[in-house]
Amino acid sequence: MPKSIPADSVGLVTEQSLIFDEPLELISGRTLSSYKLVFETYGELNSNGTNALLICHALSSDHHAAGYHNMDDKKPGWWDSCIGPGKPFDTNNFFIVCPNNLGGCKGSSGPNQPNPETGKLYGPDFPIVTVKDWVNSQQRLMLALGIKQWAAVIGGSLGGMQVIQWAIDYPSSLKHALVIASAPHLSAQNIAFNEVARQAIRTDPNFHDGHYYEHNTIPSTGLKLARMLGHITYLSDDAMRAKFDRDLSDEGFSYNYNYDVEFQVESYLRHQAQSFVDRFDANTYLLMTKLLDYFDPAADYDNDLAKAFSHIQARFLVASFTSDWRFAPTRSREIVKALIDAKRHVSYAEIDAPHGHDAFLMPIPYYIEVLNAYMRRVSDEVNA
Amino acid sequence: MPKSIPADSVGLVTEQSLIFDEPLELISGRTLSSYKLVFETYGELNSNGTNALLICHALSSDHHAAGYHNMDDKKPGWWDSCIGPGKPFDTNNFFIVCPNNLGGCKGSSGPNQPNPETGKLYGPDFPIVTVKDWVNSQQRLMLALGIKQWAAVIGGSLGGMQVIQWAIDYPSSLKHALVIASAPHLSAQNIAFNEVARQAIRTDPNFHDGHYYEHNTIPSTGLKLARMLGHITYLSDDAMRAKFDRDLSDEGFSYNYNYDVEFQVESYLRHQAQSFVDRFDANTYLLMTKLLDYFDPAADYDNDLAKAFSHIQARFLVASFTSDWRFAPTRSREIVKALIDAKRHVSYAEIDAPHGHDAFLMPIPYYIEVLNAYMRRVSDEVNA
Repeated sequence: MPKSIPADSVGLVTEQSLIFDEPLELISGRTLSSYKLVFETYGELNSNGTNALLICHALSSDHHAAGYHNMDDKKPGWWDSCIGPGKPFDTNNFFIVCPNNLGGCKGSSGPNQPNPETGKLYGPDFPIVTVKDWVNSQQRLMLALGIKQWAAVIGGSLGGMQVIQWAIDYPSSLKHALVIASAPHLSAQNIAFNEVARQAIRTDPNFHDGHYYEHNTIPSTGLKLARMLGHITYLSDDAMRAKFDRDLSDEGFSYNYNYDVEFQVESYLRHQAQSFVDRFDANTYLLMTKLLDYFDPAADYDNDLAKAFSHIQARFLVASFTSDWRFAPTRSREIVKALIDAKRHVSYAEIDAPHGHDAFLMPIPYYIEVLNAYMRRVSDEVNA
Repeated sequence: MPKSIPADSVGLVTEQSLIFDEPLELISGRTLSSYKLVFETYGELNSNGTNALLICHALSSDHHAAGYHNMDDKKPGWWDSCIGPGKPFDTNNFFIVCPNNLGGCKGSSGPNQPNPETGKLYGPDFPIVTVKDWVNSQQRLMLALGIKQWAAVIGGSLGGMQVIQWAIDYPSSLKHALVIASAPHLSAQNIAFNEVARQAIRTDPNFHDGHYYEHNTIPSTGLKLARMLGHITYLSDDAMRAKFDRDLSDEGFSYNYNYDVEFQVESYLRHQAQSFVDRFDANTYLLMTKLLDYFDPAADYDNDLAKAFSHIQARFLVASFTSDWRFAPTRSREIVKALIDAKRHVSYAEIDAPHGHDAFLMPIPYYIEVLNAYMRRVSDEVNA
């Protein structure tokens, strides 16, 4: 917990929510007759509504991107390193909005929330949503908040995919697009890891075809396996070596089939898995992995990403991290190449960092400098 | 099935077995009072017993390395591409021995075999064995077959670890050591993947703490998850892209939480997992992953691999594959560097291949040429 709020923090924050009663038609063909979005905002919207930033979250995060909910919080929001006064997404200059996406598990409409038509929790009856659906729901949030155009839409990993979709689907609604540690679609290997995670959850006897809430249980074993697996893909081999190497948790090897932890990396994974189960919903995890698998904006444009980008107006910053093997720099370069082929504006930063995919959440000095430099330009435009 | 046996095949082969009644003291402190090893041999031992090759198998393979058991076999042994007349491990020149290792599940003493002291299947009471224990058991097989020295000990992946241990523990018992797609020990990331696989098996309700034979069931769900996960690490991202990319198994997306396969890579993984469950034992899988985690020959020499190699006599060929990320070329180079530091003989081949870790099992022309060239020298020495 913070003894006191750091000077460069947005401080204590409170989540907000809005209910949207206009039906939302989904890519799946189904319709959400109404939906709720919870979100947080930091900073103040200027009088002409030109200084708003949209922060899009990744698979396992949510709308609490910065600051503290109360003085007992052990940690600030998930992107506190980048959001706050004097930070790249500077609350002295910008009004920052971060929603929990549809299908999430932190208060926005999703499997663990009540279906307004039945009063019961949605469970697996919550429709599969896509990145396009998310962007459509976020666009309504934008209008509801009185924002006519985002100064920038920003996201890492799955968040970056939302940024790409925003630029394609609402070309005049954003001036800048920051796509960090992302990819234009999942590779077969990415899909394969997702499929193993889904199988782990679905085959858990406590999953009950997704109706586990009614059985007062959760598929914690499957969700833990899914998280441990995911976590390995978020770290680089080098980062794991630096952090754990072959260090042992106790004295020597047990030489048996028991459940004891022997290596520190095993202990770490189990801890990460347990804390994830305590805070995340398995149906949401399934939904998010399907949504990731489905994301492929070029598919609507003859599988030609440059064609998908041909009518975008946003200027792009694409950033990747050298040790990221989940969405490697080569994947970011595919985005950059398509933008260049489409004769769009793009800056690209490949950041030398040993931390793997999770680097996008870390206060790596050169990375922060890149974001700072780019966002100063955005701020100058806003104030021009 | 082969319509006829190919000319460069070892042909129809029959497994053999030997029972060793001299107690084998294990690294764990436990003792096997007697044990059985099943094995296959190809070619003929020469009169002075100098032309024998030992082939060491990897995690999921066994003693059936080449040829066919009968004319209905769909596939030959697992390393048929390299073993046979005119192939790198040429049965015209060499007598080749391949045992199923202790703890395996294809007939050698292991969890799914009877404990001679009780008459019941060992199950999880079978002791954890180590690579050192395997080498000790193989050394007795060598003596039993009348072989005084191996012309070469050869293995890929976990097989390569046995080769390293042979060279360290029995320096005068092998003239050449071929270590392919291997590593001097597992990295934290390797251990992490193994731990997720083990958790998947152990948390399967049908595992029964390893006593599933007594319950007439198998932990097939967990073993399938383990295999799918393992399989992803055996292939490169590029190989999966080339094989599957984002191809769909049926028409379009289902947009639901169901169990349907949508991408071909999902279908492939499920098929691989099912066929593995049909042929492999879960307790053996646990044992093999622990044995992999434990392997660290430098640990007995102040964590100095060069010191571990200081008294070896074998000449080494180390080979790695560019796209292998399970045991990447950097891991092979660690072995090479330690051999050079120890002033030992070593040749190193880094083979450009897109197939990932599984490349070591494939008939890649340059790889076969490297092995052919090296083994011709070994053959010349034998006949000198």
